Amino acid sequence: MKCRKCGDAAVIELRRHNAAFCVTDFQEFFRNQVREAIRKHKMFTKDEPVLVAVSGGKDSLALWDVLIDEGYRTTGLYLDLGIFDYSVESKARCEKFAAARSVPLIISKQVTRRPPCSGCGLSKRYLMNRAALEEGMPVVATGHNLDDEAATLFGSVMHWQMDALPRQSPALASTHPKLVRRVKPLYRLSERETAAFAFLRRIDYIVDECPFAVGATSIAHKEILNRMEDAAPGAKHNFLFGFLDKARPVFQRAEAVELKECTRCGQVTTGTLCAFCKLADQVKRAL
Amino acid sequence: MKCRKCGDAAVIELRRHNAAFCVTDFQEFFRNQVREAIRKHKMFTKDEPVLVAVSGGKDSLALWDVLIDEGYRTTGLYLDLGIFDYSVESKARCEKFAAARSVPLIISKQVTRRPPCSGCGLSKRYLMNRAALEEGMPVVATGHNLDDEAATLFGSVMHWQMDALPRQSPALASTHPKLVRRVKPLYRLSERETAAFAFLRRIDYIVDECPFAVGATSIAHKEILNRMEDAAPGAKHNFLFGFLDKARPVFQRAEAVELKECTRCGQVTTGTLCAFCKLADQVKRAL
Repeated sequence: MKCRKCGDAAVIELRRHNAAFCVTDFQEFFRNQVREAIRKHKMFTKDEPVLVAVSGGKDSLALWDVLIDEGYRTTGLYLDLGIFDYSVESKARCEKFAAARSVPLIISKQVTRRPPCSGCGLSKRYLMNRAALEEGMPVVATGHNLDDEAATLFGSVMHWQMDALPRQSPALASTHPKLVRRVKPLYRLSERETAAFAFLRRIDYIVDECPFAVGATSIAHKEILNRMEDAAPGAKHNFLFGFLDKARPVFQRAEAVELKECTRCGQVTTGTLCAFCKLADQVKRAL
Repeated sequence: MKCRKCGDAAVIELRRHNAAFCVTDFQEFFRNQVREAIRKHKMFTKDEPVLVAVSGGKDSLALWDVLIDEGYRTTGLYLDLGIFDYSVESKARCEKFAAARSVPLIISKQVTRRPPCSGCGLSKRYLMNRAALEEGMPVVATGHNLDDEAATLFGSVMHWQMDALPRQSPALASTHPKLVRRVKPLYRLSERETAAFAFLRRIDYIVDECPFAVGATSIAHKEILNRMEDAAPGAKHNFLFGFLDKARPVFQRAEAVELKECTRCGQVTTGTLCAFCKLADQVKRAL
């Protein structure tokens, strides 16, 4: 197996691209995919400060690593959700990473009680947006990869979640002064590729999944997509990219949703009370 | 396990309906689902002659059985595709079924050479439509069940086939004088349910799949959906019905496609030569 670029011995084969790469050219391929994502979706410029949401895992640290090398003005954001040892260990990896590269890292500790898992994505999005507004940063970048995005899409499609489908995108523009732009520069790269990149870059990341993720539907959906990928390399890519190119425009409603401010916390919502505050009420009632 | 209707011992449990039925009440449940499909989608009336496409398998014969009992004016249509023993045996089941019930059966033997499998659905749709036009029948009913429809939808979605998605429906109206209505009265019933119904009604059907179907993508997709159904009863139903209720309207193009007549055979096409005639040319060139 030889590197497609230089003909040297390859270390990784990418079946869906019908290609193999050596250590150096794989890293260049990886960075090119990130560059292409940023360019194609106008994610951010070198003049803008970018808040990179980091979990201590391979994806978000690989993303931060590329963005630093590319010369972007990044600040890390670690959300400490208080998930026992998992949070302690993952925070330590983020701190070590930031210190070694002399880049700023914000640690945001959630003061309310931890909401149930069903609110995890919701809470994280809320807290990321709030932190970005507080820091005056126009954009949050997350480490979602191709597998994450395809699995989320799969779940939305199996239930035909007509609200979620138009919002699934590598880049969501700010549609309100209190809502920052959200971008996913790794959406063109698979989980296997981000793991290989993190390994080759000697990034010390936390391998364990969140202990609450065991048995999650998203993991079952990833397994289904992995089996389809094994049978037909590129299946995952075609599913996600076909959606983005062809179907998403169809789902995007002609009429824009009107955004207001939550009467309690002031963040953006389509209703009176935002979903985060509603969730917090539910948790309080359950205790 | 007791029958939901009468409290007697149940013979079949339907997890997605959270119900179980005795022999009699299951058959009534089955017929009610067919009635509901016909009513909801205005498939046909008791005054219209209905051409029922039968393959000799459980689904199409179960469908024909229900329609005869309900008093519809049915004629069977068996397409003899010349697939060796499989066609001989399946034709014999249809003939036996029709003779026992004294209902008319048309046998249509395809005179051109059998096209490749990729053209199977295409060829069958073409031949069914042609037979209906020749017989002056306004509607063709096929035995597609919930599993068939969910698997087709799954395949269309994995590739985001924007042409196929709006056309996936339990009832496609005639949009041209040379295109008859196409309906699928079993779309609310699973494969397991049609098999149980055919068994309980003592229908002698061919159990084997078409020998060319082995390894078909549709079978792989059915397996995926079956695993999802095991994990969450109703998953298949929700996937198909959610699409029909929420997503299909979004995919239906505002502008209607203009239908013309094929310059060679006169059947309906969006181009100059219809897909069947193009396929026939391809087959001739390949020989």
